[in-house]
Amino acid sequence: MSSYGSPLFAALKAEAPDAWSAYVSHAFVARLADGTLPRRAFLAYLAQDYLFLIHFARAWALAVVKSSRIDEMMPAAETVLSLVGEEMRLHVATCGAEGIDEAALAASQEAPETLAYTRFVIDAGLKGDLLDLLVALAPCVFGYGEIGARLAAETGGPPEDHPYHDWIATYAGTGYQAVCMNVANLLDTVMARRIGADPVASPRWPDLAATFATACRLEADFWTMGLEA
Amino acid sequence: MSSYGSPLFAALKAEAPDAWSAYVSHAFVARLADGTLPRRAFLAYLAQDYLFLIHFARAWALAVVKSSRIDEMMPAAETVLSLVGEEMRLHVATCGAEGIDEAALAASQEAPETLAYTRFVIDAGLKGDLLDLLVALAPCVFGYGEIGARLAAETGGPPEDHPYHDWIATYAGTGYQAVCMNVANLLDTVMARRIGADPVASPRWPDLAATFATACRLEADFWTMGLEA
Amino acid sequence: MSSYGSPLFAALKAEAPDAWSAYVSHAFVARLADGTLPRRAFLAYLAQDYLFLIHFARAWALAVVKSSRIDEMMPAAETVLSLVGEEMRLHVATCGAEGIDEAALAASQEAPETLAYTRFVIDAGLKGDLLDLLVALAPCVFGYGEIGARLAAETGGPPEDHPYHDWIATYAGTGYQAVCMNVANLLDTVMARRIGADPVASPRWPDLAATFATACRLEADFWTMGLEA
Amino acid sequence: MSSYGSPLFAALKAEAPDAWSAYVSHAFVARLADGTLPRRAFLAYLAQDYLFLIHFARAWALAVVKSSRIDEMMPAAETVLSLVGEEMRLHVATCGAEGIDEAALAASQEAPETLAYTRFVIDAGLKGDLLDLLVALAPCVFGYGEIGARLAAETGGPPEDHPYHDWIATYAGTGYQAVCMNVANLLDTVMARRIGADPVASPRWPDLAATFATACRLEADFWTMGLEA
Repeated sequence: MSSYGSPLFAALKAEAPDAWSAYVSHAFVARLADGTLPRRAFLAYLAQDYLFLIHFARAWALAVVKSSRIDEMMPAAETVLSLVGEEMRLHVATCGAEGIDEAALAASQEAPETLAYTRFVIDAGLKGDLLDLLVALAPCVFGYGEIGARLAAETGGPPEDHPYHDWIATYAGTGYQAVCMNVANLLDTVMARRIGADPVASPRWPDLAATFATACRLEADFWTMGLEA
Repeated sequence: MSSYGSPLFAALKAEAPDAWSAYVSHAFVARLADGTLPRRAFLAYLAQDYLFLIHFARAWALAVVKSSRIDEMMPAAETVLSLVGEEMRLHVATCGAEGIDEAALAASQEAPETLAYTRFVIDAGLKGDLLDLLVALAPCVFGYGEIGARLAAETGGPPEDHPYHDWIATYAGTGYQAVCMNVANLLDTVMARRIGADPVASPRWPDLAATFATACRLEADFWTMGLEA
Repeated sequence: MSSYGSPLFAALKAEAPDAWSAYVSHAFVARLADGTLPRRAFLAYLAQDYLFLIHFARAWALAVVKSSRIDEMMPAAETVLSLVGEEMRLHVATCGAEGIDEAALAASQEAPETLAYTRFVIDAGLKGDLLDLLVALAPCVFGYGEIGARLAAETGGPPEDHPYHDWIATYAGTGYQAVCMNVANLLDTVMARRIGADPVASPRWPDLAATFATACRLEADFWTMGLEA
Repeated sequence: MSSYGSPLFAALKAEAPDAWSAYVSHAFVARLADGTLPRRAFLAYLAQDYLFLIHFARAWALAVVKSSRIDEMMPAAETVLSLVGEEMRLHVATCGAEGIDEAALAASQEAPETLAYTRFVIDAGLKGDLLDLLVALAPCVFGYGEIGARLAAETGGPPEDHPYHDWIATYAGTGYQAVCMNVANLLDTVMARRIGADPVASPRWPDLAATFATACRLEADFWTMGLEA
């Protein structure tokens, strides 16, 4: 479904079309799709993404701290465990197959691009409320979902022998797409309770839109970091 | 000016008239006004209020953390310094005149009522945004201002020989009343940027009203603690 | 095993024997054990404990925020989900059997004792590091484990027809006792990394001991609140 | 005085000599000293430093939140007000003289380098305790102090007609050097209370050293951003 059925996510993208497209249509993504992305670049990205996910899990835990409603806390808590317990295992497995073990991953030095995006998201949560935090988290969650679905369609599956089959299959897969639907649902619940049904009319709209656009820029920088590694 | 000119503060009081009046018209206040409050109760209150102000200063510092607009950060930062640098000195002086020095004050055990109110306020700030935090801070700031002004009027000054002259004069004084005006101004700036001009129409109104009412109840408990000491 | 095998927990109890015993041997616990606790008191306690667990889950989520080591994040994240997903269901079931549904539970007004303890724990985490937070959480986790185990032994099981069979069986049960062991393990991992093997020798010991003793006092107040309801 | 008399600051520099020297002896600094730094680069740096200082003031406010000891809260609170009230006025004045007003400064888009360093510091404070936060803040405070003092010595004053006279005079001046002494004093007070007199022997040393080295790298990136603007 378009924008995972979320009117807030749709409005945020519509407000920052260039930042969104620079992120989801980045050269890193295009070369991942056509298979020309150098393995070295992919592994460098994957090692940073492992560190990224640790802090992303912290940001989702902060989302639990920022609510006392069970219907808001539960999906956030489940996301923490899914990030730490599952998504990171994919990175560990892929890197392990290339001879990079988890201790090496955990000991990598965080790139400035990893620091910038993760700490920006956590600070958005500390500074604002749950809605500010979710809007900062949104580009990552939904962007990977949109990219995964698009790349699966473009590559026809992808075929088993596609060099980045596992990555595309993961983010295009029903498991990850269900995460996107759940987060879209949470986002709209939180929106309804904080600003009501018309986000663009809220006095918070300029700040929310700026948070989203900044997060998109920092995501694009993350791809660039991988490509230039 | 009524409600320090703040439509949000006026609306919050109007939503919780019983909790507000149980706080500002508490027996502790009535006996402080007519001078029958036992000195022992007053000193017990003052020692807890010293500890209270330490955490209240932390809460105002959290208000600085929760904004990146200079016109919101500055009044909050000035309040921190005024609490730590000035208001607490009054407690130190009054208690010192009774033979209780600052080391003894700082070493007092925090009463549950002190813990409950201060930590509730700080958590309101961690959980929500700057508006949630200011609404939790509001009963203390404005309540003392209203009580001070009313007691000064009721006691006629108060006269120099009133047993609680210094307390009443402090909170009725132009310095403290100016703090209330500044905070009212900040509160309405923050309201305008987060929920707009009509707070009662915001989907956040039930939560904001509940935060305010809880803070009023915890303030009333604080007076009771002093009275029963 | 004594003190769940944790030298830190043992040292904290040894430093505050009166506060610990006033909590775990409170009259509420004694009357729960001998079955004379009025049902009304038990239900009032249970309704507040439902609200308590919401904020306790938030505090455990804050523990995830406060680490970037997976072996510290995982047990904390699992505790969040176990609190929100399982322990709270017991409260919902017990209260439901008495005609109090979850919406009614969630709409109860938080007692000052609930506010005081939960917000004290969360603020301990905001103010300090992960060790400070875990020490503030410890009395609740381990105290219920010790009480459950002792009451099961004292009541001989407890028998099926004991009026508080389910409560005792839950906290004496292998599931909850395993949670205690995991938390003890986490506590000692975090201790080793922050202050080393001899907690009493750390310059942080007075603060850690004070945090633990305050949390014990606030737990005892929570029982008193239930008893007087 | 060497390392502002702080054994902790001295030990942190000794542990990360390359990161420290890449920061304080960066080409930006060398060209600022010899006057060959393009005005455009200086103004780009200054505009980002204005945004930087807003978030740096938030980080110092977080230091107030993270203590309940007045002798730790006061120097942190004074630093907030000095950053917001004074240091930022220099940026406003210098940029104003070049036709860039404060509204334009505040509306500039934050560079990734500004985001990375400031949010890393704030998150260090959220994740750890006051010592972790101060160690993350240290490279900025002390680095500017050391650079200012060295450049004043190298340039002989600096002379009135040096193109960067005001910048060098500010950071070499007694006001800023006194800030460094106060912060060094605070750092060592906080160290003594959290880890004792021998920081390198603390189990926290690897984490503290890593935080310091990361902050130095992010400071060097900030200079590079200015140079390449």
